[in-house]
Amino acid sequence: MSLAESASAPRARRADDQRRRILDAAVACFARSGFHAASMQQICAEAGMSPGGLYRYFPSKDSIIEAIVERDRAEVPELLAPLLQAEDVVGALVEAGVRFMSGALQTEGLPIYAELCAEAVRNPHIHAIHERCEQEIQGLLVQVVRRGQDLGQIDPALDAVEAVRLLSALADGLATRLVLDPGADLSGLTPMFERSVRRFLAAQPEPGQ
Amino acid sequence: MSLAESASAPRARRADDQRRRILDAAVACFARSGFHAASMQQICAEAGMSPGGLYRYFPSKDSIIEAIVERDRAEVPELLAPLLQAEDVVGALVEAGVRFMSGALQTEGLPIYAELCAEAVRNPHIHAIHERCEQEIQGLLVQVVRRGQDLGQIDPALDAVEAVRLLSALADGLATRLVLDPGADLSGLTPMFERSVRRFLAAQPEPGQ
Repeated sequence: MSLAESASAPRARRADDQRRRILDAAVACFARSGFHAASMQQICAEAGMSPGGLYRYFPSKDSIIEAIVERDRAEVPELLAPLLQAEDVVGALVEAGVRFMSGALQTEGLPIYAELCAEAVRNPHIHAIHERCEQEIQGLLVQVVRRGQDLGQIDPALDAVEAVRLLSALADGLATRLVLDPGADLSGLTPMFERSVRRFLAAQPEPGQ
Repeated sequence: MSLAESASAPRARRADDQRRRILDAAVACFARSGFHAASMQQICAEAGMSPGGLYRYFPSKDSIIEAIVERDRAEVPELLAPLLQAEDVVGALVEAGVRFMSGALQTEGLPIYAELCAEAVRNPHIHAIHERCEQEIQGLLVQVVRRGQDLGQIDPALDAVEAVRLLSALADGLATRLVLDPGADLSGLTPMFERSVRRFLAAQPEPGQ
């Protein structure tokens, strides 16, 4: 490491901290008021920063939304990577789905995810961000399903790309329901999810599961 | 019909027409700009009405959102009622799901549905509207599943309420994906949906389907 590099390292760390502080503040504001109603001023106040300080890191609300989606996306490969080594591929997929659903219950993510979908329909820039994020997740899951097919644990006749679309739609839909439906809970929906995924992926449906 | 009634009938019809015109205009505005950004002025302009005219029918944006949800909801019993008479209950459920998904592709409903979910998390009034609408749909579908169980077409060991939650989550998730995922289409997802629903509901999974 050169002298210049060692001098700039604390500065880079401070910039990372500041960005994180702004994104956390923005998540709280967006969850509370929505993308449109939340103002840059509110985000500044929540982060305890001046507008000048905030605009140095993010020139617009869109750039903040983009950074939030990117940050969430960065966690996904780490979350899904173990699936590429799992002995029991289907069991590991079920477990990852349940972890995803219980995560949805503990974060401010749902209103932001739902609003992101709404925005993606009308804003091409947000649509592109959403699309890039989805492609990485779907791509990883398709690899997992193909590996399960190679190992003889998943029906080799299934179209892996379409099967991953169905499984992702199911997990997204269940996460939404867990947050919004007062009667829904993980203990009731987990066995349904497991039955659905196992039977859907099986070459020959397992009897009586 | 009394004379007074016959005189008021055209007036009632005109009020219905005006309400419909406002709701159609509001759907277009909400889809384009979102609940928060769309103003009552924009809705007036889209409907070609004065603010005074609009406020006579709807005192607030919330009351317009409520009326849109109620209108969509009113179509549901009509859509689902045939399921209560179907000979092939599972086939009829699959067909209704496919109709729902193809409807999602042809309307401005998705951004509004997604935004409704986001709003429902933060606005108790919108949450109550969403909840009331969901309860009617879920209640009807639970009757359909129980009838399928009585007829020996659906696994009698399934909890009908939880099973309907799973099926609804799947249909919602797929509708979202059809609108937002450029690679997703009905011809690819319909066989996945059918495989998933049939296998999920079967008492003994059907071999090789």
